[in-house]
Amino acid sequence: MNLIHPVILCGGSGTRLWPRSRKAKPKPFLPLVGDRTLFEATLDRCSDAALFAAPLIVTGTAHLAHVEEQLAGFAEARIIVEPEAKNTAAAIALAAHRLPQDAVMLVCPSDHYIADVTAFAAAASAAATLAGEDWLVSFGITATAPETGFGYIRRGEQLAGGFRVESFVEKPDLARAMAFLSDGGYSWNGGIFAFRAGAFLAELAAHRPHIAASVAAAVGQGTELGRAFYPDPAAFGAIIGESVDYAVMENTARAAMVPVAMGWSDIGNWQALRDALPGDADGNRLSGRVEVLDCRNVLASSDGPRISVIGLTDVAVIVDGDDILVTTMAGAQLVGKLSGAANQ
Amino acid sequence: MNLIHPVILCGGSGTRLWPRSRKAKPKPFLPLVGDRTLFEATLDRCSDAALFAAPLIVTGTAHLAHVEEQLAGFAEARIIVEPEAKNTAAAIALAAHRLPQDAVMLVCPSDHYIADVTAFAAAASAAATLAGEDWLVSFGITATAPETGFGYIRRGEQLAGGFRVESFVEKPDLARAMAFLSDGGYSWNGGIFAFRAGAFLAELAAHRPHIAASVAAAVGQGTELGRAFYPDPAAFGAIIGESVDYAVMENTARAAMVPVAMGWSDIGNWQALRDALPGDADGNRLSGRVEVLDCRNVLASSDGPRISVIGLTDVAVIVDGDDILVTTMAGAQLVGKLSGAANQ
Repeated sequence: MNLIHPVILCGGSGTRLWPRSRKAKPKPFLPLVGDRTLFEATLDRCSDAALFAAPLIVTGTAHLAHVEEQLAGFAEARIIVEPEAKNTAAAIALAAHRLPQDAVMLVCPSDHYIADVTAFAAAASAAATLAGEDWLVSFGITATAPETGFGYIRRGEQLAGGFRVESFVEKPDLARAMAFLSDGGYSWNGGIFAFRAGAFLAELAAHRPHIAASVAAAVGQGTELGRAFYPDPAAFGAIIGESVDYAVMENTARAAMVPVAMGWSDIGNWQALRDALPGDADGNRLSGRVEVLDCRNVLASSDGPRISVIGLTDVAVIVDGDDILVTTMAGAQLVGKLSGAANQ
Repeated sequence: MNLIHPVILCGGSGTRLWPRSRKAKPKPFLPLVGDRTLFEATLDRCSDAALFAAPLIVTGTAHLAHVEEQLAGFAEARIIVEPEAKNTAAAIALAAHRLPQDAVMLVCPSDHYIADVTAFAAAASAAATLAGEDWLVSFGITATAPETGFGYIRRGEQLAGGFRVESFVEKPDLARAMAFLSDGGYSWNGGIFAFRAGAFLAELAAHRPHIAASVAAAVGQGTELGRAFYPDPAAFGAIIGESVDYAVMENTARAAMVPVAMGWSDIGNWQALRDALPGDADGNRLSGRVEVLDCRNVLASSDGPRISVIGLTDVAVIVDGDDILVTTMAGAQLVGKLSGAANQ
């Protein structure tokens, strides 16, 4: 089989893991689970030379220094530096232009956690095979809870190694999420895709000609500098950003999915990180100088000062620099509303 | 009426308000409620020259610098510096020796909070009147909750301005505390006493001759240095320390009490401090850089870093130097068991 080209998206900066994640050092570049950062772990997952070609990173100037630093050991990696963020359709199109048109690209967010790397590689192979037949393939992540924060994929007829996509479903309310879970025919849309580069660009041109043309112009007038490529800012700046889901996946007639259970988490808030970390006998997840008494399922993490916690269950205590966050797991949804997170 | 001599006990160092209270700067010397420290507020309460003589402070070398610093404005105050802590019977006896024998002394802990200073002064007057008749008088603080952390005083027959003490009752369990509360005949023993100096020493000599003799020797061989008096260490060191309750109050035939409701708190743990502080509309008590979302009855206090709290009720978050304590109000009882508090 031809090698798969990993395309790693390193954009944006959220507020949901504030104060550990900050504009100056966002989530992908933090060692949230284990010793490797989420970005490094994403590179590691795609480093088997029997399966993967060298990675292509799509990032912005704000993150470039972190990307360069954490790319040590990936000498063959290349980087596309977006002049500004224009959402995923344009980012993926940039990468598709910079790859051989018959190459299969595997689009991976850089800020997710995947426990089972073997299952990931198997799904990547299956997705690449379908992509080689010009299917536009989504990873369909086995739903393990009635999550209301994710989009869902409804599977259709079986294909070799996967399924047609019956439909993409917007983030549901809790009742629908529970119905999806018991139905069994729905998977989470984790934002991992496999496309043949030429097939993706053809579908983008069909459904979003403006984005396709602007990206083509930005690439045509772009600049190479060592291993980095800089698209033309003026051409790229004209794009009206849109997600790949809206721009392409929901419109194409050739959407497929491969089901995969791989211990995936988007580490989308402190509760998700708590759940992704191994707990001690009381379910506590402690890092740094932390002492707990009579606590259960507490996440406590300090970058310096000593934390002492008594009597709490399902609470996160995060100490980072000059900030201390104490939140219930349910309250973790509100972190972005804190003035500290909003004005970081 | 003759002036009352305030005797302010400034000893010991607890662990229950760690990490704000530390060996190096214990509870009496912290501004826990309002701008004045508990020690300063104790001095302030006894500063009405129409009622009180200059205060006499009993403290140890470890606290002397704090006492001297916070005595600014009390030029007439005198200090007894204990060579070592020998509990309250000996401390009060030292003070009694240094006062005119017919003087009435009012023994006040320096680490309690009293909201209603007028009620305190009225009770002090009533207690002084009884003490002038050679009663050994305890303040009987109106019980407002079934506290299991305090001793209780059962009142007996009425006297002018107070009652005989029927009995002193050890810290009860919750069932007994609830029975005491509904009975109405029980008050909290807050450790505030009024004695005629000579009467106290006579009762001590009758019931604890060893302590009485050792204190007399320590005073006889002591040293004056400016406004400070240093008892002889060898004589004082021979004492087997005992509380005034055990050594004298439970043995004397002349124990009396004056009932008083004065918004008293021993600020005995973080819950007690929370309850002594005024709350905002949600019952939160916040000091320093603190933001809360969806919180009720939270105590949050920082000496520097910003605290952000989400979704919690009845929790304390205390930031002091290199330590961060997060505890439920119920868990506040366990603060002393933290290694940070034990090894401060």
